[in-house]
Amino acid sequence: MQKHSACSVWMSSSCCAASAGSQRRTASTSSSSPQRLDSRRIILNNPKKRNALSLSMLETLRENILTDVDGEDLRVIIISAKGPVFSSGHDLKELTSTQGREYHTKVFQTCSEVMTLIQDLPIPVIAMVNGVATAAGCQLVASCDIAVATEKSTFATPGVNVGLFCSTPAVAVGRAVPRKVAMEMLLTGSPISAHDALLHGLISKVVPEERLEEETLAIAQRVCQSSRPVVALGKATFQRQMAQGRDAAYATASKVMVDNLALRDGQEGIQAFLEKRKPVWSHKPEKVHD
Amino acid sequence: MQKHSACSVWMSSSCCAASAGSQRRTASTSSSSPQRLDSRRIILNNPKKRNALSLSMLETLRENILTDVDGEDLRVIIISAKGPVFSSGHDLKELTSTQGREYHTKVFQTCSEVMTLIQDLPIPVIAMVNGVATAAGCQLVASCDIAVATEKSTFATPGVNVGLFCSTPAVAVGRAVPRKVAMEMLLTGSPISAHDALLHGLISKVVPEERLEEETLAIAQRVCQSSRPVVALGKATFQRQMAQGRDAAYATASKVMVDNLALRDGQEGIQAFLEKRKPVWSHKPEKVHD
Amino acid sequence: MQKHSACSVWMSSSCCAASAGSQRRTASTSSSSPQRLDSRRIILNNPKKRNALSLSMLETLRENILTDVDGEDLRVIIISAKGPVFSSGHDLKELTSTQGREYHTKVFQTCSEVMTLIQDLPIPVIAMVNGVATAAGCQLVASCDIAVATEKSTFATPGVNVGLFCSTPAVAVGRAVPRKVAMEMLLTGSPISAHDALLHGLISKVVPEERLEEETLAIAQRVCQSSRPVVALGKATFQRQMAQGRDAAYATASKVMVDNLALRDGQEGIQAFLEKRKPVWSHKPEKVHD
Repeated sequence: MQKHSACSVWMSSSCCAASAGSQRRTASTSSSSPQRLDSRRIILNNPKKRNALSLSMLETLRENILTDVDGEDLRVIIISAKGPVFSSGHDLKELTSTQGREYHTKVFQTCSEVMTLIQDLPIPVIAMVNGVATAAGCQLVASCDIAVATEKSTFATPGVNVGLFCSTPAVAVGRAVPRKVAMEMLLTGSPISAHDALLHGLISKVVPEERLEEETLAIAQRVCQSSRPVVALGKATFQRQMAQGRDAAYATASKVMVDNLALRDGQEGIQAFLEKRKPVWSHKPEKVHD
Repeated sequence: MQKHSACSVWMSSSCCAASAGSQRRTASTSSSSPQRLDSRRIILNNPKKRNALSLSMLETLRENILTDVDGEDLRVIIISAKGPVFSSGHDLKELTSTQGREYHTKVFQTCSEVMTLIQDLPIPVIAMVNGVATAAGCQLVASCDIAVATEKSTFATPGVNVGLFCSTPAVAVGRAVPRKVAMEMLLTGSPISAHDALLHGLISKVVPEERLEEETLAIAQRVCQSSRPVVALGKATFQRQMAQGRDAAYATASKVMVDNLALRDGQEGIQAFLEKRKPVWSHKPEKVHD
Repeated sequence: MQKHSACSVWMSSSCCAASAGSQRRTASTSSSSPQRLDSRRIILNNPKKRNALSLSMLETLRENILTDVDGEDLRVIIISAKGPVFSSGHDLKELTSTQGREYHTKVFQTCSEVMTLIQDLPIPVIAMVNGVATAAGCQLVASCDIAVATEKSTFATPGVNVGLFCSTPAVAVGRAVPRKVAMEMLLTGSPISAHDALLHGLISKVVPEERLEEETLAIAQRVCQSSRPVVALGKATFQRQMAQGRDAAYATASKVMVDNLALRDGQEGIQAFLEKRKPVWSHKPEKVHD
């Protein structure tokens, strides 16, 4: 299955053969056959326009993210890009007075929707970055759950240089890195290296270019080895409790832990651990008890 | 005084001879005699079960933390562990369907109570880590005010591997490290090194194994040299103002500074500084003026 | 223009000749003449008293910050200090029982006002640090938008040593660095190095002493090359959205992006980019469309 979108986004699904369960227990007593687990690959594919996030690009990105997102087989999404620029952010041609206020509003609303959609999705989204990520492109990286980048990649919010302060990227970047790091990026527009991005929490891992694919897939595969409803519950709970005060967060999370244990896959995981075997996930949000 | 608890937690109180006052002023004019200052040591002592935080372990931990916690002599608590695993988190045997929802609820409620208790305690709590800290064990480290760890120590939230997403540990870990670091730990279950834990703010210091005790006690002793009510007021205020918006936080903290100055030990500290002598703390929450 | 304040703060305005526009586009088609752009330099100038932030020092600092702050020519403020101590924080002589509660209240209220003023100012404020910054002095560094420091600089919140827990500095420091870093600084009073301060987000850059001036001015100049109303809108929005939940933050920031595009300088920046020339800023908050 492969689909070339109208708006320069490629989407493909691949199957990584992965044996289920924790890799840490080698003394498996039950040999479950390798499962076929799906990761979707979305490729920003308009290198001539530096993979600018035009309105149509954003709409296609949203569509590609949402396609069958509730299907049991989809376990992880990887967003990468073709060419030396991951994404340069908004298409400035769409932001002149000619388009007008209403069009501008639609652009930023759609962009915010895509960014929050990624965080609210029931499955993890990984950014695989090999190059420059600026403005809304940097926001996209900051919005993904995990980001793997090559050593040569750089990250910037340089809108201030063209008279358009990166205020929407700042929502994601300001929540990913320390405040002073965000402020300097925003006020100077200067890029930071992949190394500094890692240091400050903007990305999750820096790898040599030749190992980008391998390392990203290794993380994706690890995610695929987990139960879908367990990951979905956990990711949603993280977003929810982090927006709460500590005590409310513990009330939320404690209840979720009990709910998690009531899931078939929650009990399967515990039982498998106690029986020293690999778990066999149903990947269905079924409960074994109330 | 030494007490071997029913539930594999050791508790002991030791006295570190410490000269009071700031170490930075060498030209002391008043030579106060060394004070005897109490640090309590709580040792997770069930290495065969990887120091799992079973319900009874959690209850004993809470009891040991709370014993005489308002006594003037207790100035700091150090939590360490016996064996190569600091703590592996919850005891999975307690989390099967057999125990049921009510029991599970009690486990997570008790755990959340212990973790928030540590942060709400009037005295600082230091984690002294030499080994693996996973799931609720990692949450325990994240919940302490200060954490010193050996180079070989590792930290992970691997619940997702056994079908139980680390949602409660995520409350503490997500507030300690950058969001993307937390997310990768939670979604992959992969451990991070002591070095990375330090880099991202999960722990306070990394030391060679042979110096763990010494370095931890040095920090404990520094804490012991301060006035008890001043530390209690400061720690409580930090928790409180960090949960507020900036302006409310400044209103809270400004009022606290004035209250702090009205304490006997607040004025003693200022006077001692101005008179170039070591302060002699009363350690009592008495006021000198309103 | 140079003015020696009553309270040991020096204020001067300098003009850095800076060519407008993005440095990344070398193929400029329009050669706008270099603009004269103003940076104000405020120097804490009471080295004998370790640049203590006495009430009068705070009031002068506030006055110097606010002077003509809405003038179009002022684009950035740099705060530095004379002598080996950037600032030692409050003047403890002002905090004895003799002054009393009302005076103490005024001191902390004024201090909080100065710190929040810096963050709420329409122009960026850069701390240029060469030496020790402790207590409210550390708070001042944490409150600036950008901080450049020399390798020998250190940062501490040692109030606990003199019986006055750094609760107000903790508001700024606790929002700048990870929680455990803040907690260890506050509970032990121990200083951290410039390197660690950079690592944890308390400062923006560490430079050799001989390059402090040059590197700070380079950042200031970069800021000066941007449009004043664009920077003002961006900085204010950052403070505002960071205090909101994610979705409210995106609503705020998305509206601001549209408003930013309606500014004359917003459209000038976009047009200049599309025409591959340097932008010529009006620096006036005028709109081109509603």
